[in-house]
Amino acid sequence: MNIGVIGTGNIGTEHIRRLAGHVSGARPGAVFDVDTERAGAIAAAVGASVHREAHDVIDDPAVDAVLIASPGDTHAELVLACIAADKPVLCEKPLATTSGAALKVVEAEAAHGRRLVQVGFMRRYDPGYLQVKSVLDSGQIGEALMLHCVHRNPSVPPTFTTDMTLTDSVVHEIDVTRWLLDQEIVATTVLGGRQSPLAADGLRDPKLVLLETDAGVLVDVEIFVNARYGYDVRCELVGATGTVTLDTPSTGTVTRNGGRAQPIHPDWQERFSQAYVDELQAWVAGLARGVTGGPSVWDGYAATAVAEACISSRGTRTTVDLADRPSLYRSTP
Amino acid sequence: MNIGVIGTGNIGTEHIRRLAGHVSGARPGAVFDVDTERAGAIAAAVGASVHREAHDVIDDPAVDAVLIASPGDTHAELVLACIAADKPVLCEKPLATTSGAALKVVEAEAAHGRRLVQVGFMRRYDPGYLQVKSVLDSGQIGEALMLHCVHRNPSVPPTFTTDMTLTDSVVHEIDVTRWLLDQEIVATTVLGGRQSPLAADGLRDPKLVLLETDAGVLVDVEIFVNARYGYDVRCELVGATGTVTLDTPSTGTVTRNGGRAQPIHPDWQERFSQAYVDELQAWVAGLARGVTGGPSVWDGYAATAVAEACISSRGTRTTVDLADRPSLYRSTP
Amino acid sequence: MNIGVIGTGNIGTEHIRRLAGHVSGARPGAVFDVDTERAGAIAAAVGASVHREAHDVIDDPAVDAVLIASPGDTHAELVLACIAADKPVLCEKPLATTSGAALKVVEAEAAHGRRLVQVGFMRRYDPGYLQVKSVLDSGQIGEALMLHCVHRNPSVPPTFTTDMTLTDSVVHEIDVTRWLLDQEIVATTVLGGRQSPLAADGLRDPKLVLLETDAGVLVDVEIFVNARYGYDVRCELVGATGTVTLDTPSTGTVTRNGGRAQPIHPDWQERFSQAYVDELQAWVAGLARGVTGGPSVWDGYAATAVAEACISSRGTRTTVDLADRPSLYRSTP
Amino acid sequence: MNIGVIGTGNIGTEHIRRLAGHVSGARPGAVFDVDTERAGAIAAAVGASVHREAHDVIDDPAVDAVLIASPGDTHAELVLACIAADKPVLCEKPLATTSGAALKVVEAEAAHGRRLVQVGFMRRYDPGYLQVKSVLDSGQIGEALMLHCVHRNPSVPPTFTTDMTLTDSVVHEIDVTRWLLDQEIVATTVLGGRQSPLAADGLRDPKLVLLETDAGVLVDVEIFVNARYGYDVRCELVGATGTVTLDTPSTGTVTRNGGRAQPIHPDWQERFSQAYVDELQAWVAGLARGVTGGPSVWDGYAATAVAEACISSRGTRTTVDLADRPSLYRSTP
Repeated sequence: MNIGVIGTGNIGTEHIRRLAGHVSGARPGAVFDVDTERAGAIAAAVGASVHREAHDVIDDPAVDAVLIASPGDTHAELVLACIAADKPVLCEKPLATTSGAALKVVEAEAAHGRRLVQVGFMRRYDPGYLQVKSVLDSGQIGEALMLHCVHRNPSVPPTFTTDMTLTDSVVHEIDVTRWLLDQEIVATTVLGGRQSPLAADGLRDPKLVLLETDAGVLVDVEIFVNARYGYDVRCELVGATGTVTLDTPSTGTVTRNGGRAQPIHPDWQERFSQAYVDELQAWVAGLARGVTGGPSVWDGYAATAVAEACISSRGTRTTVDLADRPSLYRSTP
Repeated sequence: MNIGVIGTGNIGTEHIRRLAGHVSGARPGAVFDVDTERAGAIAAAVGASVHREAHDVIDDPAVDAVLIASPGDTHAELVLACIAADKPVLCEKPLATTSGAALKVVEAEAAHGRRLVQVGFMRRYDPGYLQVKSVLDSGQIGEALMLHCVHRNPSVPPTFTTDMTLTDSVVHEIDVTRWLLDQEIVATTVLGGRQSPLAADGLRDPKLVLLETDAGVLVDVEIFVNARYGYDVRCELVGATGTVTLDTPSTGTVTRNGGRAQPIHPDWQERFSQAYVDELQAWVAGLARGVTGGPSVWDGYAATAVAEACISSRGTRTTVDLADRPSLYRSTP
Repeated sequence: MNIGVIGTGNIGTEHIRRLAGHVSGARPGAVFDVDTERAGAIAAAVGASVHREAHDVIDDPAVDAVLIASPGDTHAELVLACIAADKPVLCEKPLATTSGAALKVVEAEAAHGRRLVQVGFMRRYDPGYLQVKSVLDSGQIGEALMLHCVHRNPSVPPTFTTDMTLTDSVVHEIDVTRWLLDQEIVATTVLGGRQSPLAADGLRDPKLVLLETDAGVLVDVEIFVNARYGYDVRCELVGATGTVTLDTPSTGTVTRNGGRAQPIHPDWQERFSQAYVDELQAWVAGLARGVTGGPSVWDGYAATAVAEACISSRGTRTTVDLADRPSLYRSTP
Repeated sequence: MNIGVIGTGNIGTEHIRRLAGHVSGARPGAVFDVDTERAGAIAAAVGASVHREAHDVIDDPAVDAVLIASPGDTHAELVLACIAADKPVLCEKPLATTSGAALKVVEAEAAHGRRLVQVGFMRRYDPGYLQVKSVLDSGQIGEALMLHCVHRNPSVPPTFTTDMTLTDSVVHEIDVTRWLLDQEIVATTVLGGRQSPLAADGLRDPKLVLLETDAGVLVDVEIFVNARYGYDVRCELVGATGTVTLDTPSTGTVTRNGGRAQPIHPDWQERFSQAYVDELQAWVAGLARGVTGGPSVWDGYAATAVAEACISSRGTRTTVDLADRPSLYRSTP
């Protein structure tokens, strides 16, 4: 399988590295980036061709499938082109920057009649989240009643806005909630906590985001992007008879200087590195069988719509109104 | 020190047992209960006298201090009698069943001019909570921004109402919040999660209680009184540069049958048994020096007022309006 | 109960503090120390009388029971005096500095015909060790097959010798082994590990001590008295179908600076502070009922004999030959 | 890279599955097994050819490198054939069933002049062991002084002998010790613990294995192959100023039925599944660069020699006498 990669920023470059050295059955075959020089250097290192336009990657007959890792505002249009070209595509989140644009992609793929698009919610491939889902689905903790989430970044660049804490960060908990519970989110409330003295001017941080599902499950998410100490993602799913916790993955403990300590990942790339490999491997294995699975454009649309409702909420409960779900996406998300 | 104990239900009996066998410098000297037979048997076992009326305990010249463990609706009146008799008293929570009644006690003690009353918020003596406070006060995690709490009981008797989940259970988190942060709570919102199929008819369980302090710290409390698996109280205090967690206390791990497990306490008596001993010991040590410390009637009043606001809130934010704080209680709570 | 305390060094002073403020039913009534000034100051602080000779404490008719915390080489003779005076005594370990001297105490008490002496192996009162014993005795991990122990001190004074690592430190694991398993130790081998660069000249540190019980259970003990990072005592008891672990007791976790950490105690006083209180409380409660329980002089003798065998072993297996066990000590140790 | 796989038992089949679906840059190209039918079915499933003799795989010009997963007593001869054919080979442990046979392989490869052979000690690729090594090498716990290891299997087949607990199980700790510490093992003592009532007749289980390195580090290994509760491999490396622990890897906790539990792997395949993938990926990546790294035939020889010494030891200290180390293996093992 030759994979055409659009976008060679950090995420795209990491995907190319993984395709070249950690995924069976695929190789990075073609590359595009607006920074032609960077694209060329990366392509040369892995023996891939370089294209002058993003659409050239999609149209390249040697490219069997496309991986989109360009800036978010280019995603929807590129995915539509892939659908039009009947070419499988893995699109990094977000699927689109507005729910309206995402819905157009949903409608296009639904009209096309079969799934071509997987959206890059990699947490669904994380061993920890898979264990949480497996425990819930086994019935050993009873039905889900509540979900507590924590999402902390050590810091963010100066360009990171309050809205981005919802569309770029909390969007992962939005998808995780829908996937773990197999329920849609119908309302959301965003509350400010005490402002961190380390947050940039104008950035509201930390916040508590409440999500309500159509089955009445209440989800609370602490989003805190100036936590300083490390990248920390945890959750506890509360069932009727027990709970399951996603802990910080740990393989060892260092005891020194008066304490017994487990290290915490410095950033999300390191925290989810195995999830990214497993996501790509599952996608490629599906391509070989002609099947696209994983998070769908409907998941991408719903996540964007909920994130939009979060932005609208300024301390008040905001409902989420989704379009009708096409039959292509009727199965369990 | 001869301690007069009013009320020999479960809590009172446990207190008598501790006074007789685990607290230095005091003994249970006199006992009253409406169940005279029970009171007599317990008194005989520890060599205490029995009184026919609660007020006889207070008036007994051989009683140096009073411990009130009778039903909650008798507390305020008995504490007022202790103040009138100038006799130190440890009153189990609640101080009163309404904030109005609690305020009358505040006013009475403030008029009396010095503290005689300690309210039985025993969590302030728990080694785990003390560690949380110590870490926060040390400055090593920066200033407090958020507090996440979980409060789970395995089950409750059929008489336990939705209001009692707030006045009897969450009231502990209300006091802990005020004590840990040294801030007043100014607003509260109570939200229902998905109803547990194991909760009794008419009991709304579990719920998420949000508390906001005058410094803007947001506190979320999961209250779940049908959690089945055990009694579980935990919290994570989020500071600007780190967090401190109150874990389930553990001294050992049992590895068998495919898992490595730490036991969880079956009930609050076992969970907080050491806290109760330390609370009594600290109270008795203070009596010997003529000093009453620990949670004050102001703390009892504020906790009741916040719990009332929680009852009023049915999904909507409700503000808490406290009376003016008398100068007697101006110091750190 | 008036307790006469002989020896007001660190341990004795701590015992007096506990008797005065943390133990129900007893008070420090008389005190002796070779440092008369120190003894006087401590006695004055708790309202106790001061004696000029250790034996005056034992002979004082106002003293109901004696607590011996003087240097180890004075213990045996003082305990013999207590037996002669028919006065209950709690003797800090070691019971004697040689097994021969300890055996004389065994013979004296056996001749006396009933137990008066408890030896101060406080670990038997630690909640963690009690949990290990409770899990083993419950049968849930099957019969005991092996025991792995770690015993680490951050550092020791310059006067601490290689022999003392066995007689003062490992002696606790010797007693714990006998008590947990209810088996005698029949052989021991002491092996040197790589020498710590931080150990004083002439001090062999760390070492691995192997103990074999009469039922064939193999026990390994790492003794390391220059571990620097803290005071750390742990063990794992391996049964036929599972294991139970004594962990470092923990009530909280601090997450900062890239790690999630549980503090470790700085020294044994802090680690076993609750065990010491519970030991004294159990002893005093027994005195009130006229009963002496806990570790016996036989336990003190056996521990000393095994420690002597450890000293004799220099890399070679050394057998332990105990005297006949008098019927007074035939019951479960 | 076309990989020829010799042996399609459990381990060989798992390797083929990994090569076909989880390793970048390689595919299973040819297969042999004495069970021709089984080999044919597996080859067909992944599009590989089948050979009638093991040596045909080695000689197949379409095979770029060989993976040996046949029974241990065939390894040495097949590896020698690979060296003679100048073909890279990954040989499952053991390299040979006697140290004499292993030494012949060492001499053959040394005569060949460059490394072709990697021995399958997969633990060196486990994230947990890599963290232990990384912490030690960072200097943050000081120099290594002791190493405590636990190696438990839930059960073994009836054919598993006491010697095999050393050559097949403890051999992993032998290699880990040499690799972590970069030291040779010079002596060993094997001691029996109390016999498990669940061990088969004639199987001595559990045992304590002591290893001493040329730098004086003492290593103790509990080997217990009837532990019942799960597959459990842990170690604690004790440094001069701190320790590092290999914990059971965990990503989540399930709280129910009165306890908080982390699952333990049922067997070594699941425990080390990621280590096997990473081992193969590293080997294949090296092949692409013309480099063979990882555990060498010297490591395979030394491990076999130490395991032989363990077998010789029946409670007595047995020294290990290694041949001279050829210069090809002079670098860090």
